[in-house]
Amino acid sequence: MNIMVFAPHPDDEILGVGGTIAKRVSEGHNVYVVIVTKGYPPTLDEELIDAGRGEAERAHKYLGVKKTIFLDFPALSLDKVNRAELNGAFSKLIGEYSPQDVYIPHIGDMHIDHREVAEAVMVAARPFRDCSVERIYSYETMSETGWHIPDSSRSFVPNTFVSIGNDFLEQKKYALRLYASQIKEYPNARSAESVDSLAKYRGSLVSCDAAEAFCMIRQVERGV
Amino acid sequence: MNIMVFAPHPDDEILGVGGTIAKRVSEGHNVYVVIVTKGYPPTLDEELIDAGRGEAERAHKYLGVKKTIFLDFPALSLDKVNRAELNGAFSKLIGEYSPQDVYIPHIGDMHIDHREVAEAVMVAARPFRDCSVERIYSYETMSETGWHIPDSSRSFVPNTFVSIGNDFLEQKKYALRLYASQIKEYPNARSAESVDSLAKYRGSLVSCDAAEAFCMIRQVERGV
Amino acid sequence: MNIMVFAPHPDDEILGVGGTIAKRVSEGHNVYVVIVTKGYPPTLDEELIDAGRGEAERAHKYLGVKKTIFLDFPALSLDKVNRAELNGAFSKLIGEYSPQDVYIPHIGDMHIDHREVAEAVMVAARPFRDCSVERIYSYETMSETGWHIPDSSRSFVPNTFVSIGNDFLEQKKYALRLYASQIKEYPNARSAESVDSLAKYRGSLVSCDAAEAFCMIRQVERGV
Amino acid sequence: MNIMVFAPHPDDEILGVGGTIAKRVSEGHNVYVVIVTKGYPPTLDEELIDAGRGEAERAHKYLGVKKTIFLDFPALSLDKVNRAELNGAFSKLIGEYSPQDVYIPHIGDMHIDHREVAEAVMVAARPFRDCSVERIYSYETMSETGWHIPDSSRSFVPNTFVSIGNDFLEQKKYALRLYASQIKEYPNARSAESVDSLAKYRGSLVSCDAAEAFCMIRQVERGV
Amino acid sequence: MNIMVFAPHPDDEILGVGGTIAKRVSEGHNVYVVIVTKGYPPTLDEELIDAGRGEAERAHKYLGVKKTIFLDFPALSLDKVNRAELNGAFSKLIGEYSPQDVYIPHIGDMHIDHREVAEAVMVAARPFRDCSVERIYSYETMSETGWHIPDSSRSFVPNTFVSIGNDFLEQKKYALRLYASQIKEYPNARSAESVDSLAKYRGSLVSCDAAEAFCMIRQVERGV
Amino acid sequence: MNIMVFAPHPDDEILGVGGTIAKRVSEGHNVYVVIVTKGYPPTLDEELIDAGRGEAERAHKYLGVKKTIFLDFPALSLDKVNRAELNGAFSKLIGEYSPQDVYIPHIGDMHIDHREVAEAVMVAARPFRDCSVERIYSYETMSETGWHIPDSSRSFVPNTFVSIGNDFLEQKKYALRLYASQIKEYPNARSAESVDSLAKYRGSLVSCDAAEAFCMIRQVERGV
Repeated sequence: MNIMVFAPHPDDEILGVGGTIAKRVSEGHNVYVVIVTKGYPPTLDEELIDAGRGEAERAHKYLGVKKTIFLDFPALSLDKVNRAELNGAFSKLIGEYSPQDVYIPHIGDMHIDHREVAEAVMVAARPFRDCSVERIYSYETMSETGWHIPDSSRSFVPNTFVSIGNDFLEQKKYALRLYASQIKEYPNARSAESVDSLAKYRGSLVSCDAAEAFCMIRQVERGV
Repeated sequence: MNIMVFAPHPDDEILGVGGTIAKRVSEGHNVYVVIVTKGYPPTLDEELIDAGRGEAERAHKYLGVKKTIFLDFPALSLDKVNRAELNGAFSKLIGEYSPQDVYIPHIGDMHIDHREVAEAVMVAARPFRDCSVERIYSYETMSETGWHIPDSSRSFVPNTFVSIGNDFLEQKKYALRLYASQIKEYPNARSAESVDSLAKYRGSLVSCDAAEAFCMIRQVERGV
Repeated sequence: MNIMVFAPHPDDEILGVGGTIAKRVSEGHNVYVVIVTKGYPPTLDEELIDAGRGEAERAHKYLGVKKTIFLDFPALSLDKVNRAELNGAFSKLIGEYSPQDVYIPHIGDMHIDHREVAEAVMVAARPFRDCSVERIYSYETMSETGWHIPDSSRSFVPNTFVSIGNDFLEQKKYALRLYASQIKEYPNARSAESVDSLAKYRGSLVSCDAAEAFCMIRQVERGV
Repeated sequence: MNIMVFAPHPDDEILGVGGTIAKRVSEGHNVYVVIVTKGYPPTLDEELIDAGRGEAERAHKYLGVKKTIFLDFPALSLDKVNRAELNGAFSKLIGEYSPQDVYIPHIGDMHIDHREVAEAVMVAARPFRDCSVERIYSYETMSETGWHIPDSSRSFVPNTFVSIGNDFLEQKKYALRLYASQIKEYPNARSAESVDSLAKYRGSLVSCDAAEAFCMIRQVERGV
Repeated sequence: MNIMVFAPHPDDEILGVGGTIAKRVSEGHNVYVVIVTKGYPPTLDEELIDAGRGEAERAHKYLGVKKTIFLDFPALSLDKVNRAELNGAFSKLIGEYSPQDVYIPHIGDMHIDHREVAEAVMVAARPFRDCSVERIYSYETMSETGWHIPDSSRSFVPNTFVSIGNDFLEQKKYALRLYASQIKEYPNARSAESVDSLAKYRGSLVSCDAAEAFCMIRQVERGV
Repeated sequence: MNIMVFAPHPDDEILGVGGTIAKRVSEGHNVYVVIVTKGYPPTLDEELIDAGRGEAERAHKYLGVKKTIFLDFPALSLDKVNRAELNGAFSKLIGEYSPQDVYIPHIGDMHIDHREVAEAVMVAARPFRDCSVERIYSYETMSETGWHIPDSSRSFVPNTFVSIGNDFLEQKKYALRLYASQIKEYPNARSAESVDSLAKYRGSLVSCDAAEAFCMIRQVERGV
């Protein structure tokens, strides 16, 4: 199976899907990670940008990601990008890598880049007969998910729980630590301890040692 | 795989899951149907009750259902039954048949029996470590789904589409016709033509000839 | 009565309101259709643009639409247009044609142009004392409605059902076929068969042979 | 036109629909009010019960209600009544008086009697071909509406505003005062001043001097 | 300040509010815990019932609860109890102890007893002028909260975060362990480790070491 | 305590928070008002712009606002402004004035400027350890709140009621009248009479003479 994870910014894919990526790789699946945006000077320093990309590559190599795809859309300004362009870039990737499973950020996240990515993937993965996508999941990103105005359409309400056990949880935390420039100290939401408590909380909701939670947005079973 | 379909009244299972039952049987899975309630005199005539059960058995035999389980809870009065009793009866069945997939009516249906069944199965299928249930789906029952006060928590919003193609759709309609005492003339919602238009509408939403739509309520992938 | 249907792109008005347009015309009402956007080269070919407009005119003439108003806002980029400009254009039309009934796309549609049109009409039709608009309805557009991330605020939950019977359904399908450049083969959502199954599904929900479903968003009965 | 207003307890119909009742009567329509429950000793004193009914009759006579129908279901215990019985009683009334417009309490009201009445009318007014009901509205009852746990499915979100002007507002307040045993002093929600401020608030939302707000739940336009 | 915590069954108050109880006691406030139901033979063994009550008393004494109030409503059957009776019992307690802060279970919990308690407290704490209650909060109970059919009105969406730090978290876990007959082994949701991960997850959402999350349902600031 | 009220356009702060501002000032708190946008020629006349600012200053002086901060973002076009810039401007103000309470417009308002302000403040007030903000409230603005497409995530559902009594209500109305260029005649929503009826309606919902209603979006109690 081919799996494509869309991350607005580097490390979102680890926070949201890190354990499941490790699990799917161990099961023999192909995982592709798309880093959608890039910081630009003067908001972000050139060196920092390069450092971030290097970290992403190391973390993904560690997890066994088959390929990391860096797009160069401007971070913090995705809403100012032409929609058709974003939709088109994602359509092209889906056409090229034919993923069956697709992971997107939560539409209710605080960061507008997350919402733009979620919307554009939904367009790119429309349920046409020849679209490879069979399942679309949204993931939660501690530090963005749960910070917006809480209401019925913005809350992250998972319907899918993937047990990752202690081993894949450890891999997730290790991969996060490889993002040295992004990781913070507990109780910041972007810390290994926060990742740990979330995984155990999601796990104990369904009697697993550790789990990642997703919202399955749409699945289509074709075949007849 | 073992599959258990909970139907508050005979024929709900055909209206909601008929095509998917046929498809799953053709794939070699075991499908169990639980008819939860029974009419009682004087509301329902003895003869009619017997007739209904006979129809259910014939329709299920036609579709290849492995076993039909008739419970004797009173129709139209499930909300007056002791909850613990209903929960207990469902728990026992889940323990006995170990289904991985479970189908329940939509919690927003107009008929209170539908809501009581949905709630009680959720209790019986709590995500404990030793519970066999891996996926819970709700199905739509034309004539009950969509008739209640429409609001954000009562609307049926499917996230799962199972292509049933023309063959399984025909089987679904044939099975429905075996319920001679229940079926009505178009444009009544409980007619073969209504079933047909719903299947084609749900299909064309995802570019399939015919489909059944479900709401996947919760899935837990254990295994580590 | 004057009726104004806002269509983001040509053929949305047929998919969503085609049968009701035919019915209202037959009852003697004046129906105005506003085609909000226009494709532009290089995204869209000049010839195709002209062809589309010609189709719109023929379809509307067939249905008895009193006037088709083409605005020239850029398709696929309505979110980049200045809001005040869009609001203003719609206000002007409402002032000029004094519609009592207004039809807009569903705010939860996948296509961002649909959402922009819906929002801008709501601004243009604010319930001031001198505003002619008495009722605002949203319509469903197969291929856009139901494809977005499904949640409580994006789902199309109709509260209004207009019986269109077999005659107006046939007119709707004929008008759709006049949009030769837009129509697709079943099971594509933009096919005559899909339109047919939706109309019959919506009809059988309320025991009609065929119906169009709307969400009545706001009605104000003045008069005292 | 025939109009039927379902009131769980005497005076709910005035608080929610009083102005519109007066307006519809002045337009020549037939308004029927159904008082669903009755207090019973020892919760309620016999004399008080009689007094309440007398007040209802005087208030309705003042407004021009064509007939007041008192059912004898037990107040504060509607959820313990057999559903089929409640549904049946309402079906019978709808069959007998053939209302086109039906008014019910809000499903999100705090008082469980309100919710039971709303649910049972929805069953009794199912959109079958031969059902007279064309439009179902819910109304707001100050002191019950807005007191429950506020969430997306319990909030009263009106989509229909009926201007009642100062004259019908005065009639509404006068009718309320005829319910001497029920009315309280401001700022209690069941006071004439509260009714006044609500009507002016609802009115100024849509630029009317005074209005009543409703949620139109379902309308079916048949005829072809 | 007086604080009243309503627990459908013993230990709900610890799972949901344990840390905040400890914190409020340390600040000098009076905390009252109401255990609403009691198990009855044959469902529950007499000895077990006594044991449970003893555990509750020890846990509450440890936390500094001022008084534990045991009501004798039947566990698992609150929906069969007369509403007026439940409302009345709660009203009496609120009248007697004059709490400003009230904590109730989440209305979307899976267990019907939780929902009945939540509804009845809302009735008992209606915002009348002479009601002592100034703030109503709902709490989350791991093993009930998050297990129901997830939708917009059933999800627990907190808007209030109370930092409990490591000290009050330890007290919470110790109190839970005093409920020896209720506590389970991790990854069961009713284990000390689950409580720990939830507190850290809720904490890291708002940059605290540990926190309890609540949904503030209604607050009224009077005083002028 | 420091309080910061964000108003997209001058007078929103009075319509939404005027009474509470007066009350908080009388209690000795520091209230800061941020007027986010400015009209520009040719949409707005230079003179009118100056007049509006003068009115704001007089109204705020009357209420005892400590400081009025005028930002110069373009009115009616906030969605075209760079998000990072808006977020940054608000972050700077929050850093500078260290408010504990923050008031923002309702995310479901019709005017897109209101939504942009709400979103940007949420980003600027993220719950980091060193952020001063303890409570975030949204307020209702008659003429914008309640005019959008009504759905579960756009409706204003207050959970907080602040009694303002007749005195602060009078001050609110007086302050509004100082905005001579903005105020309209009843039944326009921006009239003193509308403000009056809303305050009395909100008050009588909770048995107060007059109140302002808010939605408390998030509160964090730190301290351990």
